[in-house]
Amino acid sequence: MYFGFSLLQTDRSSHARLGQITTPHGQIATPAFAPVGTQATVKALDPRDLHELGAELILSNTYHLYLRPGADVVAELGGLHRFMGWDGPILTDSGGFQVFSLAGRRTSGDEGVLFRSHIDGSQHLFTPELVMRVQEELGADIIMCLDECAEPHDRAYNEQALARTHAWAARCLAAHSRADQALFGIVQGGIWADLRQQSAETLTALDFPGYAIGGLSVGESKAEMHAMLEVTAPLLPADKPRYLMGVGAPEDLVEGVARGIDLFDCVLPTRLARNAALFTRQGRINLRNARFERDPAPAEAGCGCYTCRHFSLAYLHHLFKAQELLGYRLATIHNVHLLVELMREIRGAIAEGRFAAMKEEFLAGYRVIPEERRGLGSSKEGR
Amino acid sequence: MYFGFSLLQTDRSSHARLGQITTPHGQIATPAFAPVGTQATVKALDPRDLHELGAELILSNTYHLYLRPGADVVAELGGLHRFMGWDGPILTDSGGFQVFSLAGRRTSGDEGVLFRSHIDGSQHLFTPELVMRVQEELGADIIMCLDECAEPHDRAYNEQALARTHAWAARCLAAHSRADQALFGIVQGGIWADLRQQSAETLTALDFPGYAIGGLSVGESKAEMHAMLEVTAPLLPADKPRYLMGVGAPEDLVEGVARGIDLFDCVLPTRLARNAALFTRQGRINLRNARFERDPAPAEAGCGCYTCRHFSLAYLHHLFKAQELLGYRLATIHNVHLLVELMREIRGAIAEGRFAAMKEEFLAGYRVIPEERRGLGSSKEGR
Repeated sequence: MYFGFSLLQTDRSSHARLGQITTPHGQIATPAFAPVGTQATVKALDPRDLHELGAELILSNTYHLYLRPGADVVAELGGLHRFMGWDGPILTDSGGFQVFSLAGRRTSGDEGVLFRSHIDGSQHLFTPELVMRVQEELGADIIMCLDECAEPHDRAYNEQALARTHAWAARCLAAHSRADQALFGIVQGGIWADLRQQSAETLTALDFPGYAIGGLSVGESKAEMHAMLEVTAPLLPADKPRYLMGVGAPEDLVEGVARGIDLFDCVLPTRLARNAALFTRQGRINLRNARFERDPAPAEAGCGCYTCRHFSLAYLHHLFKAQELLGYRLATIHNVHLLVELMREIRGAIAEGRFAAMKEEFLAGYRVIPEERRGLGSSKEGR
Repeated sequence: MYFGFSLLQTDRSSHARLGQITTPHGQIATPAFAPVGTQATVKALDPRDLHELGAELILSNTYHLYLRPGADVVAELGGLHRFMGWDGPILTDSGGFQVFSLAGRRTSGDEGVLFRSHIDGSQHLFTPELVMRVQEELGADIIMCLDECAEPHDRAYNEQALARTHAWAARCLAAHSRADQALFGIVQGGIWADLRQQSAETLTALDFPGYAIGGLSVGESKAEMHAMLEVTAPLLPADKPRYLMGVGAPEDLVEGVARGIDLFDCVLPTRLARNAALFTRQGRINLRNARFERDPAPAEAGCGCYTCRHFSLAYLHHLFKAQELLGYRLATIHNVHLLVELMREIRGAIAEGRFAAMKEEFLAGYRVIPEERRGLGSSKEGR
């Protein structure tokens, strides 16, 4: 068996779950956060960094790799793992999210979605069958169905997109041929509980080895996102992993786990880092802030990451003011470390039956940016 | 004794020397190449990378650190070593080279050199005394006298600049107070043998613990540079280290060692790397070249660097095409590795009495870019 999921423990006070995913490239303790390596590299990090950070799964984007360097090139060089020098588990998305983010550059129909490359304007048609072939050439451990991600508040568009997403899911399943890759279905339905329910039922009937929840963190409020998770997660089979796509703010990870999510991915930690924003246990800080100019303290007292063990806020401030490449790297290390470490703590708390207290304590200390606007592409890798 | 130099062996067939420099932050086996960390970071690398690469000395630029973050800030944070997290030996230049490169933005007089910051246009006066104070605040192990670097072919300007450089050297020596920092004098004189001789004699009379040769690799031909080294090096005391400033092309290192040079620094390996150019034993290659698109080989067969051990030319090509930060880092690692490794081989060859053969073999295999134009600021860190 190439792929498996063991549900090890369920929290009494919430829907939080402790589990383990097995893939041909190793195991993933869940709940887990996957850093995003859009173009076959987690921006500013190398594979050794990722191992040292304790990342057990990374995500890479089919849309980007299909366009550059091309899935055939990656396949010729031995597949994505070998190409990028990462021997751990990889998940590739279907490219659907990126393509549907190409406002004005794409047209979707039942056959698939026609789009123009953001690189050279060339025209391409993504069908469920092509997206399966491309992901098979890339060779990730977990691959995703082509889905249509609709604006969450648009009921009519969500109904139409959902029918297509379901038809495409069946076509992806039929086209999928590599036994060493696990194909996940993606539940859609915007902020509409009945559509989410319909989607969960339709897809579970197709019996995928795992299920993603898509179309969230794309402009809806946090309350709406939570409501959709509460509707959807209980409808998914308990013995399959549940993956919330494109979500990665610390508070969202904690809230997602409480609602039964096992996997998360997001560009947020890496993108924020390149913009000088660091996660701390108290909330976000911006390294460009003048108050850090002479601050000898690390970004977070007690943090075990390479950055905090060796460098002061003053040095990080200097690196960003001076636009030095090392700044992007050190900030990225810290942000990814915080999320990976947070997931480790969450797993420990679930295992010891104290997840509710841990969640409460974390959220009490963490200053959330209120109802932050997170439109399409803002927290997910766009173009 | 804080600083020392031991001459361990002299080559029979050339002026090559094997030695060891002792500093408060460790020893440096010479001949050695020092990577440049202009703004308190060797661009794209972290201190652990530098240790792993075997770099034993790094250079940082007084001009840049004086302007940003300010030497007082660095001092307040415990000095440059602590600020940048590098516990090995550091050399700071005087800032003179950068200031004299600010064409149209500076005026020099006997007192010092008045210039406008490239960052905000603010006006500053570098005097020998200020430059000493700034370098003492930074706290490097080896510091440099303020000198005036003249256009090498301009005889009149070189005569005037040399008188100033000598007067400033004496003032630097008088102003220098930290016993744990070794102050080096800088021989100038353009491409004029008599001026170089005069400079070497004047400065050695001041009895510095080490001597730099400046004003080379700034627009003169390689033949002119070699001639000046042949004139100057024999006039410097055998028991003091000799440092050729701003030189770092592989062929120049070999040629410099043959003429009695112990230390080199240059931004060339790091700057070329960020422009996708890699050193190999056969010469330079450019990673953007389309011929590498599907090349599964490493940049250099048999190379022991992290980059060559883990990544193909095809992957490096992809990273540069996709403008990924990891590309700059991996290319920088390879280029610095090659120079540090080349110096290690040179030391081994001198120790075993086969430097002449090693030099000949290296130069026979290495395709030099013929009489490359290397104007001011091209191979040294400019602004």
